[in-house]
Amino acid sequence: MLKVGIVGGTGYTGVELLRILSQHPGVRITAITSRKEAGLPVADMYPSLRGRVDLAFTTPDEARLAECDVVFFATPHGVAMAQARELLAAGVKIIDLAADFRLKDTAEFEKWYGMPHTCPDILGEAVYGLPELNREAIRGARIVGNPGCYPTSVQLGFAPLLRTPGLVDASHLIANCASGVSGAGRKAEVATLFSEAADNFKAYGVKGHRHGPEINQQLRAVAGHADVHCLFVPHLIPAIRGIHSTLYARLTPQGQEADLQKLFEDCYRGEPFVDVMPAGSAPETRSVRASNIVRIAVHRPMPDLAMVLVVEDNLTKGASGQAVQCMNLMCGLDETAGLMFVPVLP
Amino acid sequence: MLKVGIVGGTGYTGVELLRILSQHPGVRITAITSRKEAGLPVADMYPSLRGRVDLAFTTPDEARLAECDVVFFATPHGVAMAQARELLAAGVKIIDLAADFRLKDTAEFEKWYGMPHTCPDILGEAVYGLPELNREAIRGARIVGNPGCYPTSVQLGFAPLLRTPGLVDASHLIANCASGVSGAGRKAEVATLFSEAADNFKAYGVKGHRHGPEINQQLRAVAGHADVHCLFVPHLIPAIRGIHSTLYARLTPQGQEADLQKLFEDCYRGEPFVDVMPAGSAPETRSVRASNIVRIAVHRPMPDLAMVLVVEDNLTKGASGQAVQCMNLMCGLDETAGLMFVPVLP
Amino acid sequence: MLKVGIVGGTGYTGVELLRILSQHPGVRITAITSRKEAGLPVADMYPSLRGRVDLAFTTPDEARLAECDVVFFATPHGVAMAQARELLAAGVKIIDLAADFRLKDTAEFEKWYGMPHTCPDILGEAVYGLPELNREAIRGARIVGNPGCYPTSVQLGFAPLLRTPGLVDASHLIANCASGVSGAGRKAEVATLFSEAADNFKAYGVKGHRHGPEINQQLRAVAGHADVHCLFVPHLIPAIRGIHSTLYARLTPQGQEADLQKLFEDCYRGEPFVDVMPAGSAPETRSVRASNIVRIAVHRPMPDLAMVLVVEDNLTKGASGQAVQCMNLMCGLDETAGLMFVPVLP
Amino acid sequence: MLKVGIVGGTGYTGVELLRILSQHPGVRITAITSRKEAGLPVADMYPSLRGRVDLAFTTPDEARLAECDVVFFATPHGVAMAQARELLAAGVKIIDLAADFRLKDTAEFEKWYGMPHTCPDILGEAVYGLPELNREAIRGARIVGNPGCYPTSVQLGFAPLLRTPGLVDASHLIANCASGVSGAGRKAEVATLFSEAADNFKAYGVKGHRHGPEINQQLRAVAGHADVHCLFVPHLIPAIRGIHSTLYARLTPQGQEADLQKLFEDCYRGEPFVDVMPAGSAPETRSVRASNIVRIAVHRPMPDLAMVLVVEDNLTKGASGQAVQCMNLMCGLDETAGLMFVPVLP
Repeated sequence: MLKVGIVGGTGYTGVELLRILSQHPGVRITAITSRKEAGLPVADMYPSLRGRVDLAFTTPDEARLAECDVVFFATPHGVAMAQARELLAAGVKIIDLAADFRLKDTAEFEKWYGMPHTCPDILGEAVYGLPELNREAIRGARIVGNPGCYPTSVQLGFAPLLRTPGLVDASHLIANCASGVSGAGRKAEVATLFSEAADNFKAYGVKGHRHGPEINQQLRAVAGHADVHCLFVPHLIPAIRGIHSTLYARLTPQGQEADLQKLFEDCYRGEPFVDVMPAGSAPETRSVRASNIVRIAVHRPMPDLAMVLVVEDNLTKGASGQAVQCMNLMCGLDETAGLMFVPVLP
Repeated sequence: MLKVGIVGGTGYTGVELLRILSQHPGVRITAITSRKEAGLPVADMYPSLRGRVDLAFTTPDEARLAECDVVFFATPHGVAMAQARELLAAGVKIIDLAADFRLKDTAEFEKWYGMPHTCPDILGEAVYGLPELNREAIRGARIVGNPGCYPTSVQLGFAPLLRTPGLVDASHLIANCASGVSGAGRKAEVATLFSEAADNFKAYGVKGHRHGPEINQQLRAVAGHADVHCLFVPHLIPAIRGIHSTLYARLTPQGQEADLQKLFEDCYRGEPFVDVMPAGSAPETRSVRASNIVRIAVHRPMPDLAMVLVVEDNLTKGASGQAVQCMNLMCGLDETAGLMFVPVLP
Repeated sequence: MLKVGIVGGTGYTGVELLRILSQHPGVRITAITSRKEAGLPVADMYPSLRGRVDLAFTTPDEARLAECDVVFFATPHGVAMAQARELLAAGVKIIDLAADFRLKDTAEFEKWYGMPHTCPDILGEAVYGLPELNREAIRGARIVGNPGCYPTSVQLGFAPLLRTPGLVDASHLIANCASGVSGAGRKAEVATLFSEAADNFKAYGVKGHRHGPEINQQLRAVAGHADVHCLFVPHLIPAIRGIHSTLYARLTPQGQEADLQKLFEDCYRGEPFVDVMPAGSAPETRSVRASNIVRIAVHRPMPDLAMVLVVEDNLTKGASGQAVQCMNLMCGLDETAGLMFVPVLP
Repeated sequence: MLKVGIVGGTGYTGVELLRILSQHPGVRITAITSRKEAGLPVADMYPSLRGRVDLAFTTPDEARLAECDVVFFATPHGVAMAQARELLAAGVKIIDLAADFRLKDTAEFEKWYGMPHTCPDILGEAVYGLPELNREAIRGARIVGNPGCYPTSVQLGFAPLLRTPGLVDASHLIANCASGVSGAGRKAEVATLFSEAADNFKAYGVKGHRHGPEINQQLRAVAGHADVHCLFVPHLIPAIRGIHSTLYARLTPQGQEADLQKLFEDCYRGEPFVDVMPAGSAPETRSVRASNIVRIAVHRPMPDLAMVLVVEDNLTKGASGQAVQCMNLMCGLDETAGLMFVPVLP
């Protein structure tokens, strides 16, 4: 059994990690930390875990994280950065669900996250944790930067179009995305109150969103060149979970010759968590609710335009499920262990 | 035109006051204060008011409230108390939407609101602002304590049963109520985040809720004796607006002889904002959405049990609409002026 | 592996059965029938099951249900009744999620469900499938009438108070309940459209609801006498899943002496799916979302009044999860097999 | 007072017409028809109208529509077409909220609406009822085809960019839109049940939606040439009301020189129902809830890309409010009469 620690388990990615890991056959959760809630039984904060998770939150000092095989950081940005060196030295594998190890360019990190990056060497070693595009690197990684929720869906949706050179005009991609409110986390804020977010819809982050540079960095990696520019426009859905991405790319003459459906099916054949739907489909966010699955449908609504529809659960494949998928890979477990739960519908 | 000031207009009762007063034919809003947001145009905080409310928030000092005819306090508890004496001395009428002037017993106030009551003399003068039960006193009032949202529906539902002595066992009334989330106000709190309150239902305040003593004080006033005890159990609906009260009272043998439907219709005949529905009805909260109407249906599901169903919009009849109704009465306007807007359905 | 058939799998209890059974370690689903959708792959109707359920709907004739070990009826009322005799004769165990085998009095059945009962002998044999109150009978049953969603929560909430004689006035119980909209099923109806049910709250069935006689029949069985009368008042929550019951019972002098918290804890000690929460708790429906758990809190808000709060997921413990729990018992499997999934929160 | 009739008042556009017209100072509703509900008081179907609308539904025969000044058709497609000739002959003005008089090409109409167009001559006379783009023609019209909900927002968002020739590549416009569920009407359908549409998000109509040809017809009219092609992709928001359109257009070199903010402000200066928001804004659907206002924000997120965000209430400016705005123009009333109600927020 893997010994697993969670740093900062009071947020939504924390409770989702606990939901998944408490049902994982190969894992024992040994510690979950929260400075603020130290001493509180986890199930007192999350009654959904009563009888299933007996741990109490502990201070980081009491947590003996160095004795874990793997530590997840479900913390605000900046926390993993501060503790990574010590844990790595102790032989602990690290998976950071925040952004500390996503952006390779420290200047970009500092610009978007408002803090200096304190361990660029570890950043250099860290692997971007999107298994479908980066599986082998993750297997060998000591530290993984778990992808952002939006970037996961945007990358998986555009990747088949970008991997083959010359199919689309990569300089003008559009990712028109929408997320449930849990993507904003469990912070007390007016903007995500029920009475603000319910029965409402809006774009946000219209002057620039942190996931924009992450998306572009990774799409460039997929395409293998730097002339990729994706406009990312997030919107807020009055729903708890779920991300829906509507992606647009202009097809080149070469791209117009391609069989897009086949391109996508070939790209994801055998992937346990990516479902390429039949031609003409429109995936719903609820079809992946509380699961680690991404569903994708590709369309060609104008002769020279590809449209890709992608859905995922932002807390599962968009965060904690993907983190466990990375853990499975890093630790030599079956990649799907503990992750095959069926979506909850309705 | 009445000159009207609003102290503390950044919350939901504030914006609802603005919605109503900006369409009121006999009113000019001259000031709206917020220490924190002073200088900010109101419409920048509430884009729904763009083009309709041109005011900016001001500090209380700049607001010249003493020149107003009426001042509404849409503030946290305790604010009206601190400013009432000076305004009354200047001849300004006051309507407090918070709880400073609801509970007549200062000890009860201090127990439930955690602060001493600093002007018991003004409290003694203040009139409880529920027009259907207290119209004449409101007409003559200089200062009104506007009722709580739940107490409005509970009082209007029980009043016909309590006004005639001997119909029910008043010592064991049950008010099983449910409110939309806007009743909790526009404060940044985890418990009322969308991701906490959506797709969920729960009781709350089960160890005692502030509206309990208010309900009991007023039901005793209606009944004309002290042997009234109402259990008040609030629940949280995943909806923005709306209160639904399901009220239970055991009927005495005398009560079992009564024609309850007729009792209710007689009680509220001619009331512009109370709709006694036909026998057998089940009112919906949406049937009064964004209106000043209360709908009531009375049932007798067991021979010796009365059940009353009441709906209101917690922000309108349960707060700001009722406050404007009081203003109309206090200032000699038609009671319905500015308040006849039709509910928004769907 | 048990061979399991599902008759009528197109509704919400059907898809919930599929979600549960497709992850159950001891079961193989061999057939799922729908006359209307025969030929359609189940996953085409419910994309959440893509890759997990490969079956297509079949006609009842093709389904070879007689070869199953267990058959679930997730059908409209009346269907199980028509097919039970033949299946029982073939040695198939039956679990009916509709109401055909709940009410023991055929006159009551005919009154509330508008059809004659065609097999009163089988009805006589059928066991009411609430394991916490009826476990041994279920173990030995060939045919189980699976409880209604509301009755499950009301019985589990009142049972500890009724089992010991003389604690409460059983002649005037009140069950003030609320359910998510999925309880109404997947039928095309105006009343349960999103635009009708969202941002709304109402009582319904105020002239009498089918679950009323079921509740009273079973509470009488629990109490062991006929002088039990429970008023049942359902309300509609704008949420997909979840039932919340707020139960009221007047305590006798003897009842006022009892330690209610201990009474409940003793009653449900060791029950894998009933969680008696600490004194003072208010359970939330989301704390059991998509799980087979019931959470209960008992209060005494007035000296002679008990209030019990109960939450369950209407589709899981209130329907399909409970049915699988019964199957486990009937077939000698571990009662919790396939049912230990952790609630989905948020 | 205008005498106004409504044909087919049982749907959402019907009840919204009733909400608006019952508060309109210059109108008397004389008849509202429904074959199916003839005899039923309108307020029995819509309790929100109790005390405000005293009419009962009548059969078309009893309705004496020929005596009206104006008749609104809030009916399924095809009904207005069948009755228009007779009413026009009687001197009645007609506003059709369905699609009978929107598409000028009868072949397109037949393709998308599945029925032949029976009065092409009247279609030729009919005026497209979008006042901001077509005011003078509406003033003189006898019959108006009221725009679709989506097309209203898409046209108002793209118009400033298309009116000046050469600013954008009009051959590849993208309208990524989202609508609340009330846009689907009050029909009993599984797809719009609460349990299907809540906590969910999806694209729909991905193989082509009826509003696509309407959008393209009208954008061509605005641009003054035929080389306009707009891809229209609708999505379903789990909200009752509200449309949000996110529009994309590639800017030509000339367009990149333009001051887009000024372009939009100039275009809509003085319009009572169009609010061009400050640069950098992201309008919310709730900021126009239950009002006749459209809010627009224009952005330039890439040097050669314009993005326009538009919100409207689909039932008000997207249907019934716009219809009343047209009525005001056709009948010589103040264009804003009865339409200045402030949005309901929260």
